[in-house]
Amino acid sequence: MNNLNTLLIKVKSLFEEENFLFEPEGLYAPIDYALSMGGKRIRPVMLMAAHEVFGGNADNVRNAALGIETYHNFTLLHDDLMDRSPLRRGKPTVYTKWDDNTAILSGDTMVSLAWRYFLRDSSPNLHAILNTFNETCIEVCEGQQYDMDFEKRIDVRVDEYMEMIRLKTAVLLASALKIGALYANATATDVQAIYYWGIHIGLAFQLQDDLLDAYGDVATFGKQTGTDIKDNKKTFLYLSALAHADAEKKSRLLDLFNTTPADPSDKIAEVLDIYKAINIKAITEEAIRKEFDAAKECLAAIQVDEDHKLILRELADALLGREK
Amino acid sequence: MNNLNTLLIKVKSLFEEENFLFEPEGLYAPIDYALSMGGKRIRPVMLMAAHEVFGGNADNVRNAALGIETYHNFTLLHDDLMDRSPLRRGKPTVYTKWDDNTAILSGDTMVSLAWRYFLRDSSPNLHAILNTFNETCIEVCEGQQYDMDFEKRIDVRVDEYMEMIRLKTAVLLASALKIGALYANATATDVQAIYYWGIHIGLAFQLQDDLLDAYGDVATFGKQTGTDIKDNKKTFLYLSALAHADAEKKSRLLDLFNTTPADPSDKIAEVLDIYKAINIKAITEEAIRKEFDAAKECLAAIQVDEDHKLILRELADALLGREK
Repeated sequence: MNNLNTLLIKVKSLFEEENFLFEPEGLYAPIDYALSMGGKRIRPVMLMAAHEVFGGNADNVRNAALGIETYHNFTLLHDDLMDRSPLRRGKPTVYTKWDDNTAILSGDTMVSLAWRYFLRDSSPNLHAILNTFNETCIEVCEGQQYDMDFEKRIDVRVDEYMEMIRLKTAVLLASALKIGALYANATATDVQAIYYWGIHIGLAFQLQDDLLDAYGDVATFGKQTGTDIKDNKKTFLYLSALAHADAEKKSRLLDLFNTTPADPSDKIAEVLDIYKAINIKAITEEAIRKEFDAAKECLAAIQVDEDHKLILRELADALLGREK
Repeated sequence: MNNLNTLLIKVKSLFEEENFLFEPEGLYAPIDYALSMGGKRIRPVMLMAAHEVFGGNADNVRNAALGIETYHNFTLLHDDLMDRSPLRRGKPTVYTKWDDNTAILSGDTMVSLAWRYFLRDSSPNLHAILNTFNETCIEVCEGQQYDMDFEKRIDVRVDEYMEMIRLKTAVLLASALKIGALYANATATDVQAIYYWGIHIGLAFQLQDDLLDAYGDVATFGKQTGTDIKDNKKTFLYLSALAHADAEKKSRLLDLFNTTPADPSDKIAEVLDIYKAINIKAITEEAIRKEFDAAKECLAAIQVDEDHKLILRELADALLGREK
């Protein structure tokens, strides 16, 4: 069995071996660019890890691993266009480097390239695998729509936010695991258990991302804190604060999240003061712990030797242990 | 066996029975709108027709028929956005009625809804069917890219144009036929023959569309003539004219296709004069005949009783007989 590090190396070399420099160049050069940008490659690693948890060999699910990451990168490409994000991983996004139409059409093509990878393999479970992948694609689109809808609403509830991040983030992680398990012919119970392990880990990961943006140590977290506040993003922290604040603080928060001052430091400080007054850090940590505990229960339900589950613990640590 | 008319009625009712009014509404209302707009529904009809040519029953390929038409409508939705076409079938396009982001994300979701239809069925040939569909999706994107590339080029050759319309238009028609044939377990030779029949009919159809735009009778063709000239579209007629014109006429054509006068009637008349001087109508009719003859050879190669092929002749007449 591979450990997390060897799987990461394997996935990295997978993408280095691929290239997409076909004709017409105007279509494929942006695809090659988008897929060469790197990133954590966490979804293909999860797919391979789940496959090995149930006795498979990571090398036998190379195509599905490439497929899931290609699809993920398509969602980033179209999301960056829709969100007008000029940079990703410090580099210009496709619509910035080329134009909107290029981003639309290259993204569309990447979906089919993802399918091409998935269709390279056969498996007695192929139909279930393709269904899992496709239903997840639909959920991811629904999540993005909710995310865009929420930008225009001031009454978003915390439970709606949790459902949005489940769709936008957690299901693709969970599906990667499920697909890896299906390729290893895991039992239906085990497939379900690892899927929900992925859902809870994914939710915990997103909540922690929200938390670190406000409270992370810049040195270890690697990005500036307070950007979500600066950008008026409706995170778990903000929505929980609205739910817990008294009328005065709620009104002040709504006002603050309606401004975009050139120097955001006073705004960030004031929002963090409100968060502190109503214990938002502790509330978020508790929500993360709840997801983490639910994930642990799913892990316990998986019917394989404990040493086969080590890779999943490694994955959880890698995803959630960033602040340590 | 159904005839063309009963297949058209069947396909129409298929889409009337479907609705896409799911949550979030911001995502699905535009999809429901796009799929309710109607249109010729020629691809699902071709899929069902091909299925019956090889002994199948159209009702057994309902899902694939819905899938291919859903994908086709996705391409229209994204193409209209990329081409900034405000109207389709007399109604506002999705990006006009909603906005760009809605068009992007609803279109992305339609691709997965198309896959959902395809994944509803099983068949010994399912893997080949899904591969056919997916490779065609890639070709359609390549065709759209070439089409957009050509807008910026002044040196497009006629053979490049033929390859562009093969990718953008013909392959999806041909694939619809191939998928219908694969569901009926047609032989590899027959599958290939009906696929290429579709390619040649598709090419002939597009060339005739170019021809009718310049020479069609408004009353029977149903749209204004000369719009391609007005819009400086690089059609088969224009590119053939450039290839056949002397230096003076070529230079004049290039100049004319660099203008967009408020009243285009003089421009249209002058271009038609140049076309007439170098026999562009006859050249285009000859190209159509060539494709039609190639299609006939493909039809002859299909190893089924001649009366089973009648539906294909009906289809060709419906697609190509418009000027009669």
